[in-house]
Amino acid sequence: MHNLTIDSDRLWQTIMETSAFGATLGGGIRRLTLAQEDRQVRDWFRAQCEAIGCTVKVDTVGNMFATRPGINKHALPIAIGSHLDTQPTGGKFDGILGVLAGLEVLRTLHDAGYETEHPLMLINWTNEEGARFAPAMLGSGAHSGVFDQAFTDSRTDTDGISFAEAIERIGYRGETPLGETRFAAMFELHIEQGPVLEREGLEIGIVTGVQAMRWYDLVITGREAHAGSTPMGMRCDALADAAAIILGTQEIARRLGGMATTGQLSIAAPSRNVIPGKLTMSLDLRHVTDTGLDALEIEVADLIQKQCGDRAMLQAIWNSPAVHFSATCIETVRRATKRLKASSREIVSGAGHDSVYISRVAPTAMIFIPCRDGLSHNPAESAEKYHCATGAQVLLESVLSHVASVPGR
Amino acid sequence: MHNLTIDSDRLWQTIMETSAFGATLGGGIRRLTLAQEDRQVRDWFRAQCEAIGCTVKVDTVGNMFATRPGINKHALPIAIGSHLDTQPTGGKFDGILGVLAGLEVLRTLHDAGYETEHPLMLINWTNEEGARFAPAMLGSGAHSGVFDQAFTDSRTDTDGISFAEAIERIGYRGETPLGETRFAAMFELHIEQGPVLEREGLEIGIVTGVQAMRWYDLVITGREAHAGSTPMGMRCDALADAAAIILGTQEIARRLGGMATTGQLSIAAPSRNVIPGKLTMSLDLRHVTDTGLDALEIEVADLIQKQCGDRAMLQAIWNSPAVHFSATCIETVRRATKRLKASSREIVSGAGHDSVYISRVAPTAMIFIPCRDGLSHNPAESAEKYHCATGAQVLLESVLSHVASVPGR
Repeated sequence: MHNLTIDSDRLWQTIMETSAFGATLGGGIRRLTLAQEDRQVRDWFRAQCEAIGCTVKVDTVGNMFATRPGINKHALPIAIGSHLDTQPTGGKFDGILGVLAGLEVLRTLHDAGYETEHPLMLINWTNEEGARFAPAMLGSGAHSGVFDQAFTDSRTDTDGISFAEAIERIGYRGETPLGETRFAAMFELHIEQGPVLEREGLEIGIVTGVQAMRWYDLVITGREAHAGSTPMGMRCDALADAAAIILGTQEIARRLGGMATTGQLSIAAPSRNVIPGKLTMSLDLRHVTDTGLDALEIEVADLIQKQCGDRAMLQAIWNSPAVHFSATCIETVRRATKRLKASSREIVSGAGHDSVYISRVAPTAMIFIPCRDGLSHNPAESAEKYHCATGAQVLLESVLSHVASVPGR
Repeated sequence: MHNLTIDSDRLWQTIMETSAFGATLGGGIRRLTLAQEDRQVRDWFRAQCEAIGCTVKVDTVGNMFATRPGINKHALPIAIGSHLDTQPTGGKFDGILGVLAGLEVLRTLHDAGYETEHPLMLINWTNEEGARFAPAMLGSGAHSGVFDQAFTDSRTDTDGISFAEAIERIGYRGETPLGETRFAAMFELHIEQGPVLEREGLEIGIVTGVQAMRWYDLVITGREAHAGSTPMGMRCDALADAAAIILGTQEIARRLGGMATTGQLSIAAPSRNVIPGKLTMSLDLRHVTDTGLDALEIEVADLIQKQCGDRAMLQAIWNSPAVHFSATCIETVRRATKRLKASSREIVSGAGHDSVYISRVAPTAMIFIPCRDGLSHNPAESAEKYHCATGAQVLLESVLSHVASVPGR
């Protein structure tokens, strides 16, 4: 058995140091995928990995793979991965913790001169958030064959800039072919982004899977008309329709034990004395089971039909079925947690993560730590230094103890 | 008595000709105040007025006054006024009809070599719509002393460009001091922008006044959080609050016989998997009586307080009390309509107009004609050629028959 301990102060210091790339007032980070701030943190990440003897490769969608050699040259690496991009009003931990805790694991091994049987790999996945380019988890999805190069390149942001333009602009179109990089397993450490661990006073969540989620765009067409001379009874107000749909959808979600969120709503040609004639809004539906999500979708579609008839167009733009992580990897995390005597529970993730797609091509599991008030996607997002260190130690324990088949043994 | 008849074909042709300045797909016009399209139509307007012997002056907020001399040099002009700017999704008639019918009146007099006792004046008021620079009716309000030069100059559009910058950019900061231009009365011809005249099969609305209206900005603060891992019961969703307020406000307006419209709603930092933490929306409340509007406002403020408590900030940004036009001017229009045997009724305007402010400084009245489906602020806004001509003829009849006191008689 090893006697390695990650450096809690160094990990915390590294989190604070990189939070300067895209820092916002209020302690948050705005580091949109492939923006200049993303380039800065990528350059920094590459330099730090190379400084401890890793080789860094970049694939054609910008995913970054830093490899630390193992004793067995034929073994596939055991990977640690998450993302360094943030929401427009993101915090210091979502995604970032998983990459920087992985870096702390590698630094700890490097400082101790510790050699592993398997190579280790630290991965920064591109565009996990989906905030600049929808859909989310684009880099890990492309790696896993869910999205092809052409689809990924053609995504555009709200300014009309394509993913292809943006990646060329910051110089992060790598040469490693998409999906070619292989690993034996991947572990992802992440803040919970929900209130469960904090409320129950636990240190570690052993994540067994991710709830099902679907994204939609809804376009509602009403009739533009003058706000002062169009009687209330003669209006066809697209925003009034949207309001009824937002409230009705949330009521259905509550009743069926799911979740419903509208995060974007945009009136075409808004003017304060014109009844909105057209608008576009997003819809995000989630449920712990696929059948629960099906039921939610059917009721919501029915509500929209009743409210708007053929004046509404609901388009599904993304579908992520419920995910069940690798039993072997979950067991690795469970044992690591037990050895470290950390308090824990099993949990289903409410949010999507790169691990959702990676679990399609490699055994995968996740480790959660609590975050304050369950908040994320918010400048006030916060995690305790002690919890970050515990999570990083469980991560170290997991990658060292994970038993993956090694060729030639 | 005169025997003058306006040229229906020429009036229609002029409406179609000027609709090229800012023409949009679908037959509409996007001619925002002080934009390049507004400059084009202003240049055209000035040239047409000068071509028939008028002198054109421009005041310091861009209001344009074209004067046709009268026999009595000491008499104040009798004015015709409206506006050439449009909503972002405007049509060919709102405001424009009033200015171009005035031009047709002057052309008819010019062609006939007809001299009037009073000078006549044709006015293009700046920024009636309020779509680019709130509040609406800014030019006529500034002329009437409701807004001063500094206030007007400091208005900004959504790109942060000030009124002062915009007017300098198109070269329409005139030298005539604000409010100095005087006239004995003003008549404004306008489409009804509502469904009443069309439904009752009438040609002319004799407008006796304008309903009371108030504009507000409402800022709602919730809490940004992750859409996937924040349970429905732990959310503070600013958009859900807004939806409840929009529906509740419209219900109150219906019950109290008023009107309520939200034409603008903007989520701060929108992202499809983030619960909206902050948003701004407009609120436009109207009622035919001031006391009715007071009652409406009280109930709406109470609703907002109940929904959001101190997370909402409702700010009144504009207040226009119910207006009663000049009895003398209304009588002039009534008689003109009767002489021409046009079918008519008295009507209260549901929309604001430049005449609202002008009625504070000069006797004023309005003439309505029907528009298709009561639609305006819409590319499909439409009026019959025959109705436009009837309205212009009533306008001609009104300015020729109006008895205003003439000094020295």
